[in-house]
Amino acid sequence: MTDPFRDPQSERPAPKAVISRVSLYLRQLENLHRLGHKTISSSQLGNLLGINDAQVRKDLAHFGPFGHPGIGYQIEELIPILRGILGIDRVWNTALIGLGNLGRALLRYRAFRGRGFQVVALFDTDPKKIGQMHSGLVVHGLEDLPAVVAEAGIQLAILTVPAEVAQSVADLATASGISGILNFAPAPLNLPESTALVSVDLSTQLEQLAYKVLTARAGQNPGHD
Amino acid sequence: MTDPFRDPQSERPAPKAVISRVSLYLRQLENLHRLGHKTISSSQLGNLLGINDAQVRKDLAHFGPFGHPGIGYQIEELIPILRGILGIDRVWNTALIGLGNLGRALLRYRAFRGRGFQVVALFDTDPKKIGQMHSGLVVHGLEDLPAVVAEAGIQLAILTVPAEVAQSVADLATASGISGILNFAPAPLNLPESTALVSVDLSTQLEQLAYKVLTARAGQNPGHD
Repeated sequence: MTDPFRDPQSERPAPKAVISRVSLYLRQLENLHRLGHKTISSSQLGNLLGINDAQVRKDLAHFGPFGHPGIGYQIEELIPILRGILGIDRVWNTALIGLGNLGRALLRYRAFRGRGFQVVALFDTDPKKIGQMHSGLVVHGLEDLPAVVAEAGIQLAILTVPAEVAQSVADLATASGISGILNFAPAPLNLPESTALVSVDLSTQLEQLAYKVLTARAGQNPGHD
Repeated sequence: MTDPFRDPQSERPAPKAVISRVSLYLRQLENLHRLGHKTISSSQLGNLLGINDAQVRKDLAHFGPFGHPGIGYQIEELIPILRGILGIDRVWNTALIGLGNLGRALLRYRAFRGRGFQVVALFDTDPKKIGQMHSGLVVHGLEDLPAVVAEAGIQLAILTVPAEVAQSVADLATASGISGILNFAPAPLNLPESTALVSVDLSTQLEQLAYKVLTARAGQNPGHD
C-alpha cells in the first residue's frame, strides 16, 4: 500500500508530531535527491534533523515497511510515498480570505506554491479592496464565496482576517464547501468535525518564545521545538 | 508567588501545550475585562475555548492557587499574573532579520506590538535592501548585527531568511547575544541550549492541513488543533 490513508483497514491518523516530522524528512530527502544521493539510513536522516534513528524508523514504519535491511531508504522511492501521505502529490485549489499585510505576504510566499497549494481566488470585506488585483487575481467580496468555491473547485482556505470576524467567515467558508482552513486569526474556531482546521497564531508563538527565554534565564532548560 | 518562574524552588517549565492554552486564557480574560466582567469560573472560561473546566483548573494550578472557591477567578487579578508568566509584562526589543514579503508583513503585524514585541532594528543581506527605510527603521547589513544588538539591547530575533542561510544567520544572532529566535525559515536550527527557539514553518502547517483533509475524507476524524 503506498497510500494507507485511503485504505479503510488502516489505523487511526498518525499523531500531529509524526506528521510534522514526515514534512521535515521529506524536505531533507528532496535536498539529498537534488544533490544526487540514492539511499540514506535512518541514522543519517536523523542526524540531519537532530532526531534519533529509532524515532525515524518508528515514524516511517507508521505508514509501511519502507526501509531495506542493510541499505536504508531508497530516496527516489520514498519521496513520492511521503508526498502522497502528506497529500502534496496534487494541486490544492486554495482561497485566501483577508488581504491585509499578512494575507498579501502569504500570497507571494513562494514556499506554498512549491508544495502544491495554489491560491486561485482572493476575498475581502473592505469595499476599497474589492476589485483590486493582487498577483494577477481580482479581490472578491465575501458574498461571492459560495459561487467562486464551486466554480473554481476550491478545497482549502487561508484565513487572514481580524479575530472578531474569523468565526463568521469560517462558517461561511464551511457552508460554501471548503474542506480545510488554515487559520491565522488569533481566535479559536468552532467548526464541524468534517472540516479540517490548522491554526497558526503568530502572537502565541512569540509568547512561547518569551516564556522560554525567561525559563532559560532562570536556569531551567526551555527545550527547543 | 506571582512569578513562579523566577523562583528556584519552582517546578520544571510547563509543557508547551499548557503555555499555548495560557495564551488563549489570557486573550479571553482581556476581552472579558474590556466588556466589564469581574469574575469567571473555570467552566465559563473553558466554554469560550472549547476546553473542559478540569483542564482549565489544572493548567492554571500549575502556576499557583489563583481560583477563589465559590467565586472563580478574579479577572483583574489573573490578567497581570498570566502576563507575567508568559513574559509579556515587559517590552522585548526585537530584531527582524530578512526583509522579504513575510518579513515586511510581520513588521506591520499590529498583534505583535500589542504584546510587547517591539521591532527596533532590521537586517538583510541584499545590498539593494540595505539602507532602505521600512516603518521608520533603516535596514542594516548583517555585519552590523553584534554592534546594533549591544547598542539597542536587543533580546529576540525574528528570522525570515531563506532556508539555506538560516543556520549561519542564527549562529551570528546567537554570537551577538540574542536570547531567543522565532524562526520562519523552513530549516531545522541547531542552537546552544541557552538560546530559546520557536519555529513556525508555514509550509508544514499547510501540509498538516492537507493531511487532515485527506484523513477526514477517508472517514477518519482528523481532529482540530
